[in-house]
Amino acid sequence: MRIGFIGLGNMGSGMAANLLAAGHEVLAYNRSPGRVAALAERGAVAAESVAAACDADVVVTMLADDAAVESVVSGDGGIAESLPPGATHVSSSTISVTLAERLAATHAESGRHFVSAPVFGRPEAAEAGKLFVVAAGDPAVVADLQPLFDAIGQRTFAVSADPKAANLVKLSGNFLIASMIESLGEAMALVGKAGVDKQEYLDLLTSTLFAAPAYKTYGGLLARDDFEPAGFAAHLGLKDVRLVLAAGEQLEVPLPVASLVRDRLITLMAAGGRDLDWAALGALAAWEAGGPKPGS
Amino acid sequence: MRIGFIGLGNMGSGMAANLLAAGHEVLAYNRSPGRVAALAERGAVAAESVAAACDADVVVTMLADDAAVESVVSGDGGIAESLPPGATHVSSSTISVTLAERLAATHAESGRHFVSAPVFGRPEAAEAGKLFVVAAGDPAVVADLQPLFDAIGQRTFAVSADPKAANLVKLSGNFLIASMIESLGEAMALVGKAGVDKQEYLDLLTSTLFAAPAYKTYGGLLARDDFEPAGFAAHLGLKDVRLVLAAGEQLEVPLPVASLVRDRLITLMAAGGRDLDWAALGALAAWEAGGPKPGS
Amino acid sequence: MRIGFIGLGNMGSGMAANLLAAGHEVLAYNRSPGRVAALAERGAVAAESVAAACDADVVVTMLADDAAVESVVSGDGGIAESLPPGATHVSSSTISVTLAERLAATHAESGRHFVSAPVFGRPEAAEAGKLFVVAAGDPAVVADLQPLFDAIGQRTFAVSADPKAANLVKLSGNFLIASMIESLGEAMALVGKAGVDKQEYLDLLTSTLFAAPAYKTYGGLLARDDFEPAGFAAHLGLKDVRLVLAAGEQLEVPLPVASLVRDRLITLMAAGGRDLDWAALGALAAWEAGGPKPGS
Amino acid sequence: MRIGFIGLGNMGSGMAANLLAAGHEVLAYNRSPGRVAALAERGAVAAESVAAACDADVVVTMLADDAAVESVVSGDGGIAESLPPGATHVSSSTISVTLAERLAATHAESGRHFVSAPVFGRPEAAEAGKLFVVAAGDPAVVADLQPLFDAIGQRTFAVSADPKAANLVKLSGNFLIASMIESLGEAMALVGKAGVDKQEYLDLLTSTLFAAPAYKTYGGLLARDDFEPAGFAAHLGLKDVRLVLAAGEQLEVPLPVASLVRDRLITLMAAGGRDLDWAALGALAAWEAGGPKPGS
Repeated sequence: MRIGFIGLGNMGSGMAANLLAAGHEVLAYNRSPGRVAALAERGAVAAESVAAACDADVVVTMLADDAAVESVVSGDGGIAESLPPGATHVSSSTISVTLAERLAATHAESGRHFVSAPVFGRPEAAEAGKLFVVAAGDPAVVADLQPLFDAIGQRTFAVSADPKAANLVKLSGNFLIASMIESLGEAMALVGKAGVDKQEYLDLLTSTLFAAPAYKTYGGLLARDDFEPAGFAAHLGLKDVRLVLAAGEQLEVPLPVASLVRDRLITLMAAGGRDLDWAALGALAAWEAGGPKPGS
Repeated sequence: MRIGFIGLGNMGSGMAANLLAAGHEVLAYNRSPGRVAALAERGAVAAESVAAACDADVVVTMLADDAAVESVVSGDGGIAESLPPGATHVSSSTISVTLAERLAATHAESGRHFVSAPVFGRPEAAEAGKLFVVAAGDPAVVADLQPLFDAIGQRTFAVSADPKAANLVKLSGNFLIASMIESLGEAMALVGKAGVDKQEYLDLLTSTLFAAPAYKTYGGLLARDDFEPAGFAAHLGLKDVRLVLAAGEQLEVPLPVASLVRDRLITLMAAGGRDLDWAALGALAAWEAGGPKPGS
Repeated sequence: MRIGFIGLGNMGSGMAANLLAAGHEVLAYNRSPGRVAALAERGAVAAESVAAACDADVVVTMLADDAAVESVVSGDGGIAESLPPGATHVSSSTISVTLAERLAATHAESGRHFVSAPVFGRPEAAEAGKLFVVAAGDPAVVADLQPLFDAIGQRTFAVSADPKAANLVKLSGNFLIASMIESLGEAMALVGKAGVDKQEYLDLLTSTLFAAPAYKTYGGLLARDDFEPAGFAAHLGLKDVRLVLAAGEQLEVPLPVASLVRDRLITLMAAGGRDLDWAALGALAAWEAGGPKPGS
Repeated sequence: MRIGFIGLGNMGSGMAANLLAAGHEVLAYNRSPGRVAALAERGAVAAESVAAACDADVVVTMLADDAAVESVVSGDGGIAESLPPGATHVSSSTISVTLAERLAATHAESGRHFVSAPVFGRPEAAEAGKLFVVAAGDPAVVADLQPLFDAIGQRTFAVSADPKAANLVKLSGNFLIASMIESLGEAMALVGKAGVDKQEYLDLLTSTLFAAPAYKTYGGLLARDDFEPAGFAAHLGLKDVRLVLAAGEQLEVPLPVASLVRDRLITLMAAGGRDLDWAALGALAAWEAGGPKPGS
């Protein structure tokens, strides 16, 4: 497949490299060009512009937020005007349900396809091709993309014919991670203050009821107070929680744990933790219990 | 080992049966005698009183709450006066940190041993001998109890020489389960209202980031709205959350998610859900989002 | 003064009538024309368009939300192009801090003045000319507007030279009302379930520590379960709480009570209470305690 | 009236002095005797023991918590055995609903009367005889106590024939104060970070919608960061919020704002603020927004 790839951050670099490794042709574009050069050494074509990256069967966007995605879709030389009719835009960023809805409409009007395919996994998983892909859109188009998804992920879940459902599922998953970090942080603050070793406590939890990757990964970061460098920065986590709350408001679903996590993340911002790993939100409980400020 | 076993409810019956199956001598006592008869058929000696059950090396208590434990420890014919000096009281109930502290002191004064050994697992696990045992107390005494723990559980975690630490760990574990139920309930209310199938959503979660027994068990109950009969009743869950909050207050650790879950469980009580499985607390989010009342 | 007045809803009608009564010339515009006719009978000039209403020294906007304000400011015939240079746009709507910032910039560039002057008070107060006006903007311009403010309000607070500060103060005030409704609702649910008369309880509170208009007004609505017709509809309250949370996020100030109230208001929406008075959010506590659904 | 008065703390000293000033005979008892001497100079009889203070028509208890009240009621020489039959025990402390229920039963069995008469007001109001008295119990007995209530308060509210209702009302009132402190603290953190003067902001609020004593008193403490010495210490506030939550649990009424305030007060304890005025809980919002720790 000939694939344009826009956005070579922590996640995108690994994904694009795996597309190359699987034999796909990759036209790589990034706003700051350093990352492109690294990928070109592994065989990618350096695209000079968004428009140049659109000269493909599929263009994948993997960018930080709604604004970044909108900036490469709209305007002169954007995806909306540069992508050939019949080609597909795959959005793997964690974007709002509202933007997914809008992109689906825009592409449908102009005869392009749109598939939402956000991914679960941190940069290590992106590099290893072990992401989980949540895909939604026209079933035939999603089926055609399977080789692409196989290159970047270990498994694909096709959840709906409506693209935005994938974004909602992705956002809800990030909410579940955030709520787990918060809960685990509270539990560790509690047993830790009573003298129980945090790492042993985590071993107990993760060899029994909570033997899940998310508990091991985030629990480990919490037990070691290891928040730098960030695999996923706190301010991006706040963005996602904001999006899940907005989706909840639109659907009229109150989400009190999400609200609580949002407040915690704002506290973390105000405490200077913007660029810490979002696992640091779990360290606020210990701070409020008289311990040190997260990241200090 | 000659073991007195007091409390043959959903959990205790299975545990006592496994002690018998492992070749231990069991003196079984229950306030209402029906359960004793069932166990006597499998080889247990029916104890007529708490005092009779104390004619043993070890007496295990597996009762509903602090009051029930206190009622068999204190007073005429209670464990405190009936257990032979040098024998051990193993408390497997989920009791308060404060009561564990008091029992440790009482037994120490009179030359008995006290070990806190609460367990993780639902009635099915108790019946299968697959519980997880969290033990704390004098290390030599805990080591001697290993055959007993092996009969009821798949693994033992010795967390501290101070009995009450095991109770705190157990309570914190129940808090983590409750917070997971709440969070999962909110996420399911959200994606469910957008038309995503709840069981498929759960499959996605539990084959990826949240591939843990707790998510499978409780997520399944939630996806199927299956809250009767209760494996663990909501009012007992409320008791445990109250105890974890009390422990947090004593240690000066704020636990906002626990507070939220407590309010939810009280709402569930007021909605008539006292005897539903505590998984039903996760169904309140969908109720508040305009769906049916849990258990209706 | 020659005053264009745009937006003749529950609040705007009363305000415009008081401007007329005080001898000002009023050019009244409303999207649906029925309200204009009523005001014309009292001496207002019926403006056929936004542009027509801008033929004035001052144009006041009193509209439901950000989108409504933007729709009369931007585009063909909007305030931004129709208001004479040197004239003043007074925004009395409860709008976002962000929009206030943008309007200030837009008008400054084109040589118009912009003053934020949101008001406190319900429709009865608007009709009686008893509002409280919170004004911010160029002090000289604010001073010139005093006769206008005197006609609609009983007191003016000039809080800042920066227009958006008035919007923040207004939003924070609405947040305080919402948090009071919620707290009072919880307290009434508690004592009410114990058999204390809610009206007598309110009398006790409002003749002692809480002898304030807000407690009397909203407490009375709560004690009588009197939520229709709405003085201020729940969905507008939700909008304001959303705006205060957005302002908090921008300033990095966590607002947990605002988060809680937001969740409550979403529950009220899902329960069909969109058009009830927002006092109904205080009735959710009694609902969760086993009482009837608000508004049923 | 011949009145025994037990408990001469910040509140009790002023109340007892006003009883003396109104011409009542006062038998004053305090655990630490310094305060008794001061009162004796103003005409009180120094009681050497609880029993001695019970040689009266009425004995008033004004003590810190449930435990303190129980310690003077039960046991050798306690009120339960020393108070003459037909005499009345007036409990003005803020005690639990459960204890009030128990005291009512104890006294009824032995032919004494019991009236719950908690008060609203801070030490200044106690000294000035300007408290608000919430009384509940046998209406005839409450009526006979009116001269006593008139000496200490500006107004009496007889809310129920069931003593414990007065305690519930008192606790709910303290909850409303706490929730107001929290909400006001959040609002001030918000506008304060945007540069609005906190005292001016408070003046605006208290001359309009929130023109109530509670807002003036606590808002003033917050605006000036004035938390020492405490009129009412944070740890006593936490006790009251705990009691209101316990009452809510018993009545199956969820109280989410009370839960939030409880977590905040625990944070304040852990931050070293145990003995600060409980208004300091309102300063936590500004701390979490990046400001200084309360009391530092």
